[in-house]
Amino acid sequence: MNAAIQTKTVEYQQGGTTLEGFVAYDDAIQGMRPGVLVVHQWMGLTDYEKHRAEMLAQLGYVAFCADIYGKGVRPQTVAEAGALAGKYKSDRQLLRARVNAGLDALGRQPFVDPKRLAAIGYCFGGTTVIELARSGADVNGVVSFHGGLDSPTPADGKNIKCKVLALAGADDPFQKPDDLAAFEREMRDAKVDWQINLYGGAVHAFTQPMAGNDNSKGAAYNEKADRRSWEEMRRFFAEIFK
Amino acid sequence: MNAAIQTKTVEYQQGGTTLEGFVAYDDAIQGMRPGVLVVHQWMGLTDYEKHRAEMLAQLGYVAFCADIYGKGVRPQTVAEAGALAGKYKSDRQLLRARVNAGLDALGRQPFVDPKRLAAIGYCFGGTTVIELARSGADVNGVVSFHGGLDSPTPADGKNIKCKVLALAGADDPFQKPDDLAAFEREMRDAKVDWQINLYGGAVHAFTQPMAGNDNSKGAAYNEKADRRSWEEMRRFFAEIFK
Repeated sequence: MNAAIQTKTVEYQQGGTTLEGFVAYDDAIQGMRPGVLVVHQWMGLTDYEKHRAEMLAQLGYVAFCADIYGKGVRPQTVAEAGALAGKYKSDRQLLRARVNAGLDALGRQPFVDPKRLAAIGYCFGGTTVIELARSGADVNGVVSFHGGLDSPTPADGKNIKCKVLALAGADDPFQKPDDLAAFEREMRDAKVDWQINLYGGAVHAFTQPMAGNDNSKGAAYNEKADRRSWEEMRRFFAEIFK
Repeated sequence: MNAAIQTKTVEYQQGGTTLEGFVAYDDAIQGMRPGVLVVHQWMGLTDYEKHRAEMLAQLGYVAFCADIYGKGVRPQTVAEAGALAGKYKSDRQLLRARVNAGLDALGRQPFVDPKRLAAIGYCFGGTTVIELARSGADVNGVVSFHGGLDSPTPADGKNIKCKVLALAGADDPFQKPDDLAAFEREMRDAKVDWQINLYGGAVHAFTQPMAGNDNSKGAAYNEKADRRSWEEMRRFFAEIFK
């Protein structure tokens, strides 16, 4: 890792709950730069997202990992993770409040240009950044990595002011064709600037090495799709931050 | 245009028919380089494809525009174009022979590295480059820009040895959901390395300025999708030619 990358845990608040995020930036760069919010998968904020934040810092951004669940709330089992993620997925208003609190915390970090903001997220976090867009947040764009794209309130698509990029495994069994079609309809009806990339041979969680390599489990790492989707995010950022 | 770009009309043969292609390369670059075949839309080889070839030459490739229809066979009306394109689409063996003749002609051009070849195509040409892949051609990759993706012989997907990238308008009325699903099945069943990018708000022919700007006609230029798809092709080339 670049020695100039600075990282720090950052506490912030939402609705009386303390959240514990993480910021990363390159100390060798001068001045204001775009800020990127990183939203965690269902296990909560882990070293994985912190590593992505460091990668983003190396690209010249200030990256801030949101904490949706709350300080110290870090599931230890997939059962716990499923229950927690389910709680927020079924309370989209709370989810929106939490992710917007993260966005606000990002905006308060040194060197962040408040006119150039984006959010990326993985799995549960991929769903969350689309919800951030649906909340009408003032960001230039959001990128969902293998996130669920369906919405209980598709009319909220009309609130979206930013560009939307969804990166999905073409073989993801958790991405139902009907949900994908509903998402496309929502984006189309709301005249959003949206794109989807489908990666052949990739299932759910294709960016997550800890998912293993067995596609038959429905979730698995896919090195090619991981690399291609990261490059696509970089291209997207080059477009939205220019 | 870069003054160093050299262009030339090139005659070649297939099955007793004379075809008239077009080559472009940068004279200021030394040595061997990747070769890119460019396959025209239904109106035949026009200045549009020649301009794309020049753009590819500026990127450092040798670009060769194939002529599928034959020397002097240049439709003047969409009715003629439809009949000609239909003839080749309903005779996939002839279409494959013609596009492979173009690939061979590309391979004979100076400075072309025969181990680094790709093909791109627009509309009818987008269909054609997928057929090139289905013929088992020795190329590193093919890129279809708003091409029809369905196949009368989906089992031929097993012949594909190259990477496949399809760039499609999410609102393209000529891209039927069933055809898209059939293409995905063909790629999946044959374990091809494939990707699709869907561009929101883009209809058929989104790379073609002559298509106008009225989406309600089903075919229209879309500057954002044009730019994004070209960038995606560049990213893909960087991957397959490294």
